[in-house]
Amino acid sequence: MKTADVLIDALEYIKRFAGQTFVVKLGGEVMMSEEVMDAVAQDLILLNYVNIKPVVIHGGGVEITRAMDKFGKKPQFIDGLRVTDKETMDIVKMVLVGQINTGIVSRINKHGGNAVGLSGKSGKLFVAKKKAGKVDIGFVGEIEKVNPDIVNLLIEKNYIPVVSPIGLGADGEAYNINADVAAGALAAELGASKLILLTDVKGVLRKDGTLIKRLVADDIEELIKDGTAKSGMIPKLKAIKQALDGGVKRAHIIKAKKHAILEEVFTSTGAGTMITKEEVRGE
Amino acid sequence: MKTADVLIDALEYIKRFAGQTFVVKLGGEVMMSEEVMDAVAQDLILLNYVNIKPVVIHGGGVEITRAMDKFGKKPQFIDGLRVTDKETMDIVKMVLVGQINTGIVSRINKHGGNAVGLSGKSGKLFVAKKKAGKVDIGFVGEIEKVNPDIVNLLIEKNYIPVVSPIGLGADGEAYNINADVAAGALAAELGASKLILLTDVKGVLRKDGTLIKRLVADDIEELIKDGTAKSGMIPKLKAIKQALDGGVKRAHIIKAKKHAILEEVFTSTGAGTMITKEEVRGE
Amino acid sequence: MKTADVLIDALEYIKRFAGQTFVVKLGGEVMMSEEVMDAVAQDLILLNYVNIKPVVIHGGGVEITRAMDKFGKKPQFIDGLRVTDKETMDIVKMVLVGQINTGIVSRINKHGGNAVGLSGKSGKLFVAKKKAGKVDIGFVGEIEKVNPDIVNLLIEKNYIPVVSPIGLGADGEAYNINADVAAGALAAELGASKLILLTDVKGVLRKDGTLIKRLVADDIEELIKDGTAKSGMIPKLKAIKQALDGGVKRAHIIKAKKHAILEEVFTSTGAGTMITKEEVRGE
Amino acid sequence: MKTADVLIDALEYIKRFAGQTFVVKLGGEVMMSEEVMDAVAQDLILLNYVNIKPVVIHGGGVEITRAMDKFGKKPQFIDGLRVTDKETMDIVKMVLVGQINTGIVSRINKHGGNAVGLSGKSGKLFVAKKKAGKVDIGFVGEIEKVNPDIVNLLIEKNYIPVVSPIGLGADGEAYNINADVAAGALAAELGASKLILLTDVKGVLRKDGTLIKRLVADDIEELIKDGTAKSGMIPKLKAIKQALDGGVKRAHIIKAKKHAILEEVFTSTGAGTMITKEEVRGE
Amino acid sequence: MKTADVLIDALEYIKRFAGQTFVVKLGGEVMMSEEVMDAVAQDLILLNYVNIKPVVIHGGGVEITRAMDKFGKKPQFIDGLRVTDKETMDIVKMVLVGQINTGIVSRINKHGGNAVGLSGKSGKLFVAKKKAGKVDIGFVGEIEKVNPDIVNLLIEKNYIPVVSPIGLGADGEAYNINADVAAGALAAELGASKLILLTDVKGVLRKDGTLIKRLVADDIEELIKDGTAKSGMIPKLKAIKQALDGGVKRAHIIKAKKHAILEEVFTSTGAGTMITKEEVRGE
Amino acid sequence: MKTADVLIDALEYIKRFAGQTFVVKLGGEVMMSEEVMDAVAQDLILLNYVNIKPVVIHGGGVEITRAMDKFGKKPQFIDGLRVTDKETMDIVKMVLVGQINTGIVSRINKHGGNAVGLSGKSGKLFVAKKKAGKVDIGFVGEIEKVNPDIVNLLIEKNYIPVVSPIGLGADGEAYNINADVAAGALAAELGASKLILLTDVKGVLRKDGTLIKRLVADDIEELIKDGTAKSGMIPKLKAIKQALDGGVKRAHIIKAKKHAILEEVFTSTGAGTMITKEEVRGE
Repeated sequence: MKTADVLIDALEYIKRFAGQTFVVKLGGEVMMSEEVMDAVAQDLILLNYVNIKPVVIHGGGVEITRAMDKFGKKPQFIDGLRVTDKETMDIVKMVLVGQINTGIVSRINKHGGNAVGLSGKSGKLFVAKKKAGKVDIGFVGEIEKVNPDIVNLLIEKNYIPVVSPIGLGADGEAYNINADVAAGALAAELGASKLILLTDVKGVLRKDGTLIKRLVADDIEELIKDGTAKSGMIPKLKAIKQALDGGVKRAHIIKAKKHAILEEVFTSTGAGTMITKEEVRGE
Repeated sequence: MKTADVLIDALEYIKRFAGQTFVVKLGGEVMMSEEVMDAVAQDLILLNYVNIKPVVIHGGGVEITRAMDKFGKKPQFIDGLRVTDKETMDIVKMVLVGQINTGIVSRINKHGGNAVGLSGKSGKLFVAKKKAGKVDIGFVGEIEKVNPDIVNLLIEKNYIPVVSPIGLGADGEAYNINADVAAGALAAELGASKLILLTDVKGVLRKDGTLIKRLVADDIEELIKDGTAKSGMIPKLKAIKQALDGGVKRAHIIKAKKHAILEEVFTSTGAGTMITKEEVRGE
Repeated sequence: MKTADVLIDALEYIKRFAGQTFVVKLGGEVMMSEEVMDAVAQDLILLNYVNIKPVVIHGGGVEITRAMDKFGKKPQFIDGLRVTDKETMDIVKMVLVGQINTGIVSRINKHGGNAVGLSGKSGKLFVAKKKAGKVDIGFVGEIEKVNPDIVNLLIEKNYIPVVSPIGLGADGEAYNINADVAAGALAAELGASKLILLTDVKGVLRKDGTLIKRLVADDIEELIKDGTAKSGMIPKLKAIKQALDGGVKRAHIIKAKKHAILEEVFTSTGAGTMITKEEVRGE
Repeated sequence: MKTADVLIDALEYIKRFAGQTFVVKLGGEVMMSEEVMDAVAQDLILLNYVNIKPVVIHGGGVEITRAMDKFGKKPQFIDGLRVTDKETMDIVKMVLVGQINTGIVSRINKHGGNAVGLSGKSGKLFVAKKKAGKVDIGFVGEIEKVNPDIVNLLIEKNYIPVVSPIGLGADGEAYNINADVAAGALAAELGASKLILLTDVKGVLRKDGTLIKRLVADDIEELIKDGTAKSGMIPKLKAIKQALDGGVKRAHIIKAKKHAILEEVFTSTGAGTMITKEEVRGE
Repeated sequence: MKTADVLIDALEYIKRFAGQTFVVKLGGEVMMSEEVMDAVAQDLILLNYVNIKPVVIHGGGVEITRAMDKFGKKPQFIDGLRVTDKETMDIVKMVLVGQINTGIVSRINKHGGNAVGLSGKSGKLFVAKKKAGKVDIGFVGEIEKVNPDIVNLLIEKNYIPVVSPIGLGADGEAYNINADVAAGALAAELGASKLILLTDVKGVLRKDGTLIKRLVADDIEELIKDGTAKSGMIPKLKAIKQALDGGVKRAHIIKAKKHAILEEVFTSTGAGTMITKEEVRGE
Repeated sequence: MKTADVLIDALEYIKRFAGQTFVVKLGGEVMMSEEVMDAVAQDLILLNYVNIKPVVIHGGGVEITRAMDKFGKKPQFIDGLRVTDKETMDIVKMVLVGQINTGIVSRINKHGGNAVGLSGKSGKLFVAKKKAGKVDIGFVGEIEKVNPDIVNLLIEKNYIPVVSPIGLGADGEAYNINADVAAGALAAELGASKLILLTDVKGVLRKDGTLIKRLVADDIEELIKDGTAKSGMIPKLKAIKQALDGGVKRAHIIKAKKHAILEEVFTSTGAGTMITKEEVRGE
């Protein structure tokens, strides 16, 4: 009997993860495909129903750039960070909170889940300050403090929180926060057992393009130094390092495709690259 | 992706049944096969992990007869009811509570569940009185009152209760209760949404031996009267009738085989005979 | 002693309203002035600290029109309702949820409150359907059902909810909902004791421009029929009628100026127009 | 706008003190004036409504002396302590618990609060023993142990406890306890953040009669030694020292006049003398 | 074995009364004897430990008269009610609350119980108004409303409440309430199962001086009319009538002697006169 | 007055033990007498009603041997341990869980208590492994871990748990556990204050046959070494030693006769042998 066999196999994973929190970061690319997003929504609902607590956080760089275009503004980057003047910050909020976050909430709720969208300002979730640097790049922030109460309240009541990486400054200003960094900090603060980064690459790749299936936290620095990890992969790995240091047990970088989350969570093959604090045996 | 597809299909059923109580009655025949029992244990654990509350109740006629043999006692039946003198009642308790119930508990707990065995005396679950009749057949009882508090306490704390159909008389005597009848009364009192009878037949059969897939409560009397339902099927159908009258939404008679419960609960094809209070449309 | 006298006067109102919920609707005009908005934020925080539960809901027509301009889209209205094609709906969400809602949350939290922003999609707060009409005006919706659980959860935990009037269709689509109507429906569903509409007019005016200080629900129809209430005042009065019918005790239409809410709540003079279900004596 | 400005100023203090416990000791002199007592009652109710937990404890030396007069007994003091024979102790209980305590309860409840009177015997609040000394002065006690459970229960349920400084000996005897000392011990045991002594003097005065606005705990010994603090001020300061050592953040000696509590709590000017454990900056 | 037999006999009564509330009224006479009062205290503690909730209410006419003497005031009665001017009312409060109530609390707590004294003002337990009548007899009140919250809170937390029959007028004035009447009203409002009046007579006596062991509520009027019940017995019977009408199951008038409460509660012989709503069979 | 005096004497013990857990082990001999068992049931119920939490655990060696006889199996012992093959283990379960445990539950519930039977498998109460030894004696186990959750849940809800000393192996097998050892381990894990072993001897006897009334844990080893303690007394003393080391305050070995438990708990004379960790003074 097919169905029963799959369910019984899944049961081992359900038992293992019951009651735990998973932080799932959706890269901007993930959200381009309606089909993938519908599958992601179903995956999150399934986790929720088997008593795993998913917390979603999303990026949105591509969409922000597209919206700036429409408003006739030209994006400018310094060291990979978007120069974010007041007007750009308004666009960032509109795109992340008004468009992408509400879109994810809709999709989850349409499929029968019960999601609640949050910007990082709500409940002072992400208290931020202006990112220090040689050049002033505007409202780009770094997290000073995560106040996880509002997220914990929602997951305790079985809602699926969907978080936009916007920080609230002491001055009341909004700050644009790197979504991977926000995901790592949130995962650590929530005591999540897994941090899953859904991206448009298969995972961390060797210089020859082959996938690295397992890493430990201590390898990360070397990978960055020797140029194996480049550009967008660098903040991901740094965020993961921070999450693992903060107590998260496992981090995963996975290519977004239909039901990639379920494949990762409920099968022994797993997917993408798994990074742990220390070497894991026999699994 | 196979696993994900099955899980997503199952999700519809998980959503529908989340938080509900299912009473599952295991016929004596079910418990003959180690393989089936291991599968039943897993099925119950899976239900429990997806927030469905399984309550198990079991029979044991075959085992009782076998134990009487060993003790050199000859079973005697009047109108299908076992004549139960004091010594026989001792054997009934020993077999049902000491052997079968502990066996089911072991099996569930071995597979990672958390079962608690209960005789119907514990917490005065089944208050019984001697079954009235023309001939005195001894300690054969009928239920006067179900006190479901102990069962509700256990399911609220996520234990899987396993119940033996022994009643407690006002006189402190134990009474042997028909397991199907006990299952029906318990399901009604717990406000269960499903009553599943796992048996050694495919379901209710027509006189030509074909399976009746759906019945409504009002058909039952006719089926008995016209002889379609015979011998062991009669108390099952009467118990189901009572359960449905008491508010249980659906009752199922299913042939015990590996993972028959999962097949019934998590697939659209279902299994065996489904009996409802009124006709169900479009499912 | 000045401070003490004012506090003791306020105490009467604090006693009267302790534990009650007030729904405060902020009109788009209110939010134009930084100074007024800072004062509104403080007023809401004060209510919250004296155990009155404020729930904020906001409009944003002016801002939406301005954003459409930037995107090069021309607003079009039929019977006072904005024609809302897909692209316009995207702008509506971006402006309401991404810009205005996050702005209000920032302001409250900067002043020491603890606000949480919600679109009407979150927790399926506003389940909506396409507004019926002779002409198709796109994603303009009406409320089918208010699910107040998420708002009740937040106020129970002393957060100040800030709600955007976006509805979630069964199809997963977002619908633009009139903010006054949403405020009235939310107030009724929450069992609020007061509904306060902060606007840019002094209240309901007679044809001669003088303020009507008190109205009862039954007067509303006549005021609309005889043309005393016009344009934007009509949906306000209809929403108030519905709120009062739904059990809200008092509704107020007040001109937004600094601390207008406190003046209304904590002084005997009150402000603007008060509408009640039945005539109120002696206050 | 006057009212709003005062309220907004008060908000800063409301935020700061929300959820904290204040022990307010009413000197016998305070209770001579109906007008002052009505104002005190209102002040306590206001604190209670803005989520500050007031606990009242009262003295009554003047009234005890007056009652002794009526009974034809002559008060006698040794080292400032009333010689308290059995008959005097009966008068003490009658005056403190029967007259003064019930009077304060009446006044608070008349103004719309919900006070509950307690002698220190109730719930074994003050376990006492006979005060040691060279001369036997009868039923004058010192506190051995404060059992704050009954007070904590009442403040948790939003009652305003009103406590008489009577202790219960292991022998079942009642002991007369100095009210300032009892206030200090109670404040420490409750984890109060403020101890306010309402008296008939402006505060601690210098030898030249000017008010000392701020003191730290370590100054107290010197003030007593050099004779600045005299007679009734000495036990007050000792009690305050003990309260501060026990974790109370601030103690205040204030002249009782109308709404002196509100003036102290809700304005920046404060009133009387404030004593803290360590020097406070910038407030 | 003696001890065990008594305990096993008592067990039947413990089972029957577990979780129920008993209101015990102590007449002024009871409190004259140290020995009886020590025994009463122990009885109440025993009830409390076997999960019966005792609530004590006391009288004090004799002591009030004695205290008035000391103050040089002459008691005056009209229709059996004490004329209570302002000064007398002060004495009433001092004696009841300050002396008798604290005395009972001491005694219970000395024996290892945990009593809390309450005047009827605390928590607005007895809201009273001036008793209407042809002649103004001052601060003699009747109960308008019993607010049992404070008593329920205390018994839920296993304290033994000791209540003085003082009422709080809307005007903030204290009113003297007949203790039997207060006991009856309190018993009804608390849903007590027993009301026990401890007095200095054996119970209700026939004209020939013999004890009436059982009465039903409907007999009461006749007993008063025909003069069997006289003077002090009349308000007792009226209060009992009201308590029984209010749902109290049994009322008892018992002569106070050592452990009379235990004798009544834990033996089949009972003591004094038992009054029930309807005739009780076979006990 | 006899009844009252006994109750007041008992009150001292009720106060001392209120809220504590007592583990009572019933030896097989105890259960031979209907009269004794009825008295034991009443004693347990009385403890339960005065807020002492009894947990029952039972043996059953005699009954097992008798049942083996009926099945035609010859018992065999090695070093005092029953050789327990598969078939014997089935008989052990049937007798202990099916016959003795249900019998105790019946008796308690018949007398008005609310007992719940548990084998050590339920809730994984006793996790066991095969007892190591030179010779393989089959399914004789030793406890690896006690999971007291299910017992704590039951006593918190005022049920009387009745436990059979059967352990659950990791392999799902049942293991026969010495009942005294199981009682000691359970008492330690529950934080019981008393462990009472009801046996057929008067207590620990000196070589001259006189009773040793008091022992401390450290004496036990010597008693065994010098042959004072023999055969069945040795495991009892070892189990007691372990319980005391695990924090149990007092252990008692008492001869089972009518109401022996009450005599031990509620009188100063006590009964049998009391063993404590350290010497107890003045009791």
